[in-house]
Amino acid sequence: MKNFQRRDFLKKTTVAAAGASLMAACQPSKEKQSVEAPNVNFNKTFQWKMVTTWPPNFPVLGEGCNLLAKWIEEMSGGRLKIHVYGGGELVPPLETFEAVSNGAVEMGHGVGYYWAGKAPAAQFFAAVPFGMNAQQLNAWIISGGGLAMWEELYAKFDLQPMVCGNTGVQMGGWFNKEINSVEDLQGLKMRIPGLGGKVLSKAGGSAVTVAGGEIYTNLERGVIDATEWIGPYHDYLMGFYRVAKYYYYPGWHEAGPVLELIVNKSKFDRLPKDLQEIIRTASMRSNVWMLSEFDAKNNLYLQKLINEEGVQLRKYPEEVLKQLRLYTKEVLDEIISEDPFSAKVYESYQKFRNSINYWSEVSEKTFYNQILN
Amino acid sequence: MKNFQRRDFLKKTTVAAAGASLMAACQPSKEKQSVEAPNVNFNKTFQWKMVTTWPPNFPVLGEGCNLLAKWIEEMSGGRLKIHVYGGGELVPPLETFEAVSNGAVEMGHGVGYYWAGKAPAAQFFAAVPFGMNAQQLNAWIISGGGLAMWEELYAKFDLQPMVCGNTGVQMGGWFNKEINSVEDLQGLKMRIPGLGGKVLSKAGGSAVTVAGGEIYTNLERGVIDATEWIGPYHDYLMGFYRVAKYYYYPGWHEAGPVLELIVNKSKFDRLPKDLQEIIRTASMRSNVWMLSEFDAKNNLYLQKLINEEGVQLRKYPEEVLKQLRLYTKEVLDEIISEDPFSAKVYESYQKFRNSINYWSEVSEKTFYNQILN
Repeated sequence: MKNFQRRDFLKKTTVAAAGASLMAACQPSKEKQSVEAPNVNFNKTFQWKMVTTWPPNFPVLGEGCNLLAKWIEEMSGGRLKIHVYGGGELVPPLETFEAVSNGAVEMGHGVGYYWAGKAPAAQFFAAVPFGMNAQQLNAWIISGGGLAMWEELYAKFDLQPMVCGNTGVQMGGWFNKEINSVEDLQGLKMRIPGLGGKVLSKAGGSAVTVAGGEIYTNLERGVIDATEWIGPYHDYLMGFYRVAKYYYYPGWHEAGPVLELIVNKSKFDRLPKDLQEIIRTASMRSNVWMLSEFDAKNNLYLQKLINEEGVQLRKYPEEVLKQLRLYTKEVLDEIISEDPFSAKVYESYQKFRNSINYWSEVSEKTFYNQILN
Repeated sequence: MKNFQRRDFLKKTTVAAAGASLMAACQPSKEKQSVEAPNVNFNKTFQWKMVTTWPPNFPVLGEGCNLLAKWIEEMSGGRLKIHVYGGGELVPPLETFEAVSNGAVEMGHGVGYYWAGKAPAAQFFAAVPFGMNAQQLNAWIISGGGLAMWEELYAKFDLQPMVCGNTGVQMGGWFNKEINSVEDLQGLKMRIPGLGGKVLSKAGGSAVTVAGGEIYTNLERGVIDATEWIGPYHDYLMGFYRVAKYYYYPGWHEAGPVLELIVNKSKFDRLPKDLQEIIRTASMRSNVWMLSEFDAKNNLYLQKLINEEGVQLRKYPEEVLKQLRLYTKEVLDEIISEDPFSAKVYESYQKFRNSINYWSEVSEKTFYNQILN
């Protein structure tokens, strides 16, 4: 684009836009359009298994996995059938990564931070506290160099990663008292896993790991003082509003976790090219579908929680967020000092983030502040 | 979901989440997973034509159409080949709608407001001033009932519409003077098409239609005083920074126009089911790809414009936006009073918008204000 000449650009005039001649010159996309000669055996069929970290048919997430399998089967004319298993039906939810990696099953769906123990850098392709949101993460992974690094990381585990959904900005959690300062977090026993939990610990809180099914009872009995979960729709289904009064936002710990599809790479590479592309494309359709469903549902259930259940909506004070941001820096510094690949990914992540924030200020941020209302 | 019982929900415990039994009960998605028996003739091939409103290989938009064709060809194992034509190569850009509608070609790519003359309500599925952004429009169309109305509207023209891209929030335009009040818009000759132009006219400005290729020269010679185009990447390529000093944001007239794929419905309906689903899915992949490319590129080119070309970035004053919003209401009221289908679509659009704004305040808006920095 450096040698771009405006005059060339303006030679050709069309109604909607301009610049055919130059654009053709700077974008040789005729080449892109050439497609390898089809080498497809339409008689060969595949029966695959997909394990997930979600309960069977779990709203949005499990439903999305079922739809993914349906789309793939339909697009392949029935040549690639995928049986979707809920977490625990075939393997425990958090063994999804291992099961796909060792080839016990062909596919899995979950979030990168679940495998932080095996691949710490996977967290940057999921969610880090005070990190990028759904739209920014898409831009980084798809158009900003993120995918190549993600593939490099997962290739070590014989896995092919794909973006396959996003929850959007999560909520900050349920509390039985107001959080007016960082002091209010001290001694607080909160169910908050992963990096968010480490940040809370630095703030003097006590991060507890509680399985999803036990959170409600623990909160009711005072075994824990607070919990985060996902967003208004799923939080409503869990009934937290019956045992906690204050519902905080924003979800500083997860501003838009990437939900990932992982495919056993050896098996993926041996698939006919058309089926590979079908999987890639279906995953991107799920990516949009899940976020759209979350947005449409969270919207309705937030209003339900407030208007029908009397939930008190609260915003984390700026000062608390400022402190948590500082603790986040400490937590991330520890990770990158211990894991060289994390350092490499974090550098790319931060570079893209600092850069896109500049554009987001002018575009989306201004939309929400000046156009939304 | 009304009879949801927390106790049932908590019966089954898994590590990542909870609620298999209930979720299975409230979401009968086994049925969803059943796939019609494949009825696919893998020997039949199709050669289709796709016309677009963009110059051939136009950055992001034309490139995205080329990629769409490539994905479809790859996924179909070469059974559906699509030749993509730039605007004017086969039919003039703005005749895309008509050419696909009458079956001269099978597919087209453009934006709904281009066909406002034939179907005024199409504008609500594209962009209206002070309307929804990309993420909100996806949620409305995909998960909020928008698609059914869009399909109903386009069926009258024998067209099947699909979401197939988004530019994200656009920029507000290039000016040779500062805009400090609505008075500064009076008498201003600005290249701004569609509804944005009508709003400007109400503010006392003069909306001019100028073909893309003539904007630069008209601006240089003072035939027009100002222009809007797309965003930093495309605006940079047009060279506007050489003849206008002030670059305004936000693009209040287009907060995230939906780019659409239109397929001749009769021909689409006669396609084998697998190819139909391949087109639908590829369109959604383009949807994500285009927005990601716009975000990644706009980000870099905005910095280039400011740091290398000395462009003065300016934000529209709140008071000006407030006035333009009032004029927008007048413009929209005129449209819905003249066209009953527009009234119906606008009702759904506004209802969803008012509702999702509630959630966006808590999620994305707070992300941009409290987490971004």
